[in-house]
Amino acid sequence: MAKNYLIGMDGGGTKTKCVVTDNNFNPLFECQGGPSNFLIIGTQTVSETILSLILDSLAHLHLSADDISSILIGTTGAGRETDAQKLQTDFIEYAGSKGYSFNSFNVSSDARIALEGAFSGEAGALLIAGTGSVIFGKDRDKKIHRAGGFGRLIGDEGSGNTLGRHGLNRVAKELDGRGGRTVLTELLNSRFGIRDSSQLITEVYRNNFDMASFAPSVIEAAQNGDTIANKILEEESDELILHVKAIYDMIRDETLKLCLIGGTISTDNYYSKMFKEKVKLQAPKVKIVSAENPPEIGAAFMAKMMI
Amino acid sequence: MAKNYLIGMDGGGTKTKCVVTDNNFNPLFECQGGPSNFLIIGTQTVSETILSLILDSLAHLHLSADDISSILIGTTGAGRETDAQKLQTDFIEYAGSKGYSFNSFNVSSDARIALEGAFSGEAGALLIAGTGSVIFGKDRDKKIHRAGGFGRLIGDEGSGNTLGRHGLNRVAKELDGRGGRTVLTELLNSRFGIRDSSQLITEVYRNNFDMASFAPSVIEAAQNGDTIANKILEEESDELILHVKAIYDMIRDETLKLCLIGGTISTDNYYSKMFKEKVKLQAPKVKIVSAENPPEIGAAFMAKMMI
Repeated sequence: MAKNYLIGMDGGGTKTKCVVTDNNFNPLFECQGGPSNFLIIGTQTVSETILSLILDSLAHLHLSADDISSILIGTTGAGRETDAQKLQTDFIEYAGSKGYSFNSFNVSSDARIALEGAFSGEAGALLIAGTGSVIFGKDRDKKIHRAGGFGRLIGDEGSGNTLGRHGLNRVAKELDGRGGRTVLTELLNSRFGIRDSSQLITEVYRNNFDMASFAPSVIEAAQNGDTIANKILEEESDELILHVKAIYDMIRDETLKLCLIGGTISTDNYYSKMFKEKVKLQAPKVKIVSAENPPEIGAAFMAKMMI
Repeated sequence: MAKNYLIGMDGGGTKTKCVVTDNNFNPLFECQGGPSNFLIIGTQTVSETILSLILDSLAHLHLSADDISSILIGTTGAGRETDAQKLQTDFIEYAGSKGYSFNSFNVSSDARIALEGAFSGEAGALLIAGTGSVIFGKDRDKKIHRAGGFGRLIGDEGSGNTLGRHGLNRVAKELDGRGGRTVLTELLNSRFGIRDSSQLITEVYRNNFDMASFAPSVIEAAQNGDTIANKILEEESDELILHVKAIYDMIRDETLKLCLIGGTISTDNYYSKMFKEKVKLQAPKVKIVSAENPPEIGAAFMAKMMI
């Protein structure tokens, strides 16, 4: 029975999902534990969580460590190779100190395992637009491509953070007579209790106002006919289209499967509909599809590639 | 001879200028000391600097504290009333602990004393576009108006920081094929040694790249015919015009004198020329003028108002 199993994990800021599969990626056992954002809570805590999930899985399936051919965790904060390697090294050392060793243990990014899961290891692209934005794709030669992901200061076009930031900017402009009237000003007042310039500045710079939390108000205002909010959505959905076109040009396949991730774009709302319409019209070779598997199964796919 | 003199001070992040004037604002003695950014270096250090400048002035002119009818410092960080009051209270207490008391000591913002100096206490407006941007104005009824100044996250339109940020965004877009070609990418490489996405992200998020430092490259690229850089300047100079129009509407005078402050807009460059042309065409009732007096004399004007 040795080495016939894989473990895939999907680590995030609030929880870590773990799945044990056979060599054909059929899930045999699932469990979950605490967060895996090791850049924030440290590799020691995350290593404890990972080991505990592995040991729970082994116990439940009556397996030994040697039955697992490969383990891979895709997690937030592992986008840089050096950061991913640090978690890998620290986990192996921690597990060793507890008397455990594994055949193969690797760390990858949360985006990468989502990509592998979505297309079962085949070619395709993943547009992530939640608080931030980025697009990843894999071509037929298994090469990974990427566009965007430059973060809240010089990037994140089309994301919740950007929608919210532009919304607040338009409120600021209305408040001192530099911009047209928008219902956003009223929404910021009724939902967040912010009613003048001084209060807005205090919330943003002293209380770290979460700009993405204002994105739903921008979407709602646009849906209700607010011209200024609508212009923000038009511009930012255009930016997302630029991401899609860029990855299409990189992948150089006739058609491209695209999976949407992140609350801003994957839920059914006025903005995501606007974006999907533009994809149909402006990038007709791109087909929006649902993910074939969840990220933790994508992690199991990647675990097998590492053997 | 008692109470026939005024002291005005202009406090900044690198130095504090001090001037003693007679009641007609003729400067009799000038000196300067260390920084006055009390939100950063604390009110104790700034109080020491202020007292030392006052005592030097008194000694040089053979005056006693009672000969000074009023003292006012306009300084960075005093834009909020509560912050300004804290420096005022702390200075008076500190001076008292050293055995000194003054007839009148007040704190105001650096922008406010610049406004009073520029128009010798009369009506006019001051557009500040350096790293950040804001416009202040005073009407014939002595009422102060303001627009902009919402800071780097949701405001600062038209400022050096915004020009640089948009420039970096366009470099990011070219680097991953989401935007047109721009000479900005080459300039960022040759001047800052940043040549790929990963390095750009590291500089911005780990090394706090000073975005305003890229503004001169954006201006230069536009001047040399770069379409993308030129579009940034067109949009941001339009934003500055919105500031001017907003303050013109608030002041409600037939004509408005406007003084320009801050490196981005007060120096003679391609961007400031573009802005001045737009003022002529789009706001012909606004007359751009030079400041009549420096900010420390503006502080002396305000000191007299406080008597």
